[in-house]
Amino acid sequence: MHTIGFVGLGAMGAAMAQQLVSKQFKVTGFDLNTTAVETLAASGGHAATSAAEAASGADALIIMVVNADQAEAVLFDGGALDALSSGAPVILCSTCAPERAEAMAERCQTAGHPFVDAPVSGGMVGAEAGTLTIMAAAPKPTFDATEGVLRAMGSNTYFIGEKVGQGSAMKTVNQLMAGVHIAVAAEAIAFAERAGIEPSLALEILSGSAASSWMLQNRGPEMVEQTGKVTSAVDIFVKDLGIVLDAGRSMRMGLPLAAAAHQNFLNASGSGHGKEDDSQVVKVYRKLKAD
Amino acid sequence: MHTIGFVGLGAMGAAMAQQLVSKQFKVTGFDLNTTAVETLAASGGHAATSAAEAASGADALIIMVVNADQAEAVLFDGGALDALSSGAPVILCSTCAPERAEAMAERCQTAGHPFVDAPVSGGMVGAEAGTLTIMAAAPKPTFDATEGVLRAMGSNTYFIGEKVGQGSAMKTVNQLMAGVHIAVAAEAIAFAERAGIEPSLALEILSGSAASSWMLQNRGPEMVEQTGKVTSAVDIFVKDLGIVLDAGRSMRMGLPLAAAAHQNFLNASGSGHGKEDDSQVVKVYRKLKAD
Repeated sequence: MHTIGFVGLGAMGAAMAQQLVSKQFKVTGFDLNTTAVETLAASGGHAATSAAEAASGADALIIMVVNADQAEAVLFDGGALDALSSGAPVILCSTCAPERAEAMAERCQTAGHPFVDAPVSGGMVGAEAGTLTIMAAAPKPTFDATEGVLRAMGSNTYFIGEKVGQGSAMKTVNQLMAGVHIAVAAEAIAFAERAGIEPSLALEILSGSAASSWMLQNRGPEMVEQTGKVTSAVDIFVKDLGIVLDAGRSMRMGLPLAAAAHQNFLNASGSGHGKEDDSQVVKVYRKLKAD
Repeated sequence: MHTIGFVGLGAMGAAMAQQLVSKQFKVTGFDLNTTAVETLAASGGHAATSAAEAASGADALIIMVVNADQAEAVLFDGGALDALSSGAPVILCSTCAPERAEAMAERCQTAGHPFVDAPVSGGMVGAEAGTLTIMAAAPKPTFDATEGVLRAMGSNTYFIGEKVGQGSAMKTVNQLMAGVHIAVAAEAIAFAERAGIEPSLALEILSGSAASSWMLQNRGPEMVEQTGKVTSAVDIFVKDLGIVLDAGRSMRMGLPLAAAAHQNFLNASGSGHGKEDDSQVVKVYRKLKAD
């Protein structure tokens, strides 16, 4: 497995494709953003003018677009699946609802292409360092055949299970916790402020105690300092916690913590903060003091 | 400040009193549990047969009983305040609602005794090592006068503010995050199980990702392995998140994450798991699969 088609060269995708290039894979990339395609071509990859061209002749096709709708458009409407070499696997790295990944897998498998449900976690830092966490679900032989490609992008690659959809389910679990951790950090810091405690002191104490979380340490400072930088937007958690709750609905499983957090991200977005950093969900609480 | 009265020699209190003894304070302790009093006396402290006797002649009185009701009983009904040396401060280390701490402070100050609102965090490990986090609020001169005693028990002693109640508010914020983190870890692990993912694998991945929290790493294993050990009981979070929500009510501040977590701890307790480890809030979710 040497020739890779790569569709979706956003911030994460571009870094992942570059990792493959740096590990001697022959990578042909496509994105609607032509600048991203040119950047890949200028640094050792190859440019394609369509998803089908990127897939054409590839030993595997990696999809890292924004969501399931785009992934389906690339695979089925965009002709990438038809252009792919006979029997070559499709590796879906986008964050999708487990059901959507399953549905795509079925259509790919029917067309003779194995499918790996392989969402990623670890952000830009992990993508650029090749240390992403990749949560892969596929029949074991398919996982074994694609493991080298996966590990080239993510040194923390896990085999989640044989059932496609379980990779997306694991990513969904990850987003459940990440989203709730941001929302509760906002709740705690806003509570401290309202009680008259200096928020930077509250953050310092919480970060060093049993109340700490990765997200508190990572997003807490921006809740306090509000520099305006955007690590990831409020609307991403509107979407991702929406996927979490849709999955809970389809499994008939109530998820009260995720639901409460989602309401707050929705209210933050509905108050005009959707494009701001997800830490700014704290503004939902601060509005209480606004008038 | 050398002679200390200490009331409340439970697991945490006994270890804190012992820290003071080891640092050359003269500690006279009282607890309704006579064994605890004898243990202190046998290891360098002194035994009292009542709270008033422990307070008698002391330079400061430390209270580490279970809740605000007990603290008031000790101070006012038990005669400890009357027995205390003129002008000696009361240091309240129990976890209480901020309003309750304020009310006690007022009565103590009226009687001529400065008051330090100084709840602690860090568990048995921190108490035994003298590394507790102590969140102290008091007029600055009172804090300065008692800081040496506080630091003898907690190397991470913070001055939260001049207003009594802010220490308890900070501890309340701490419990808000700790409780929500346990509840969401349970939600996530139960979700993974329901999606057919091996829970120990889900825990491993989450613990190493941006979804991690101190509580996930500390309580997650017991959610998966269910050995039956009890670090801290479900009913403690029924109580502590109750304090969180009462404080939110009195500040007129909605706390949707804390409220959702509290409902789950209540349901866990109401299902007969109140005395089990707080990690067993996961059983609320697992009941979905029970029949």
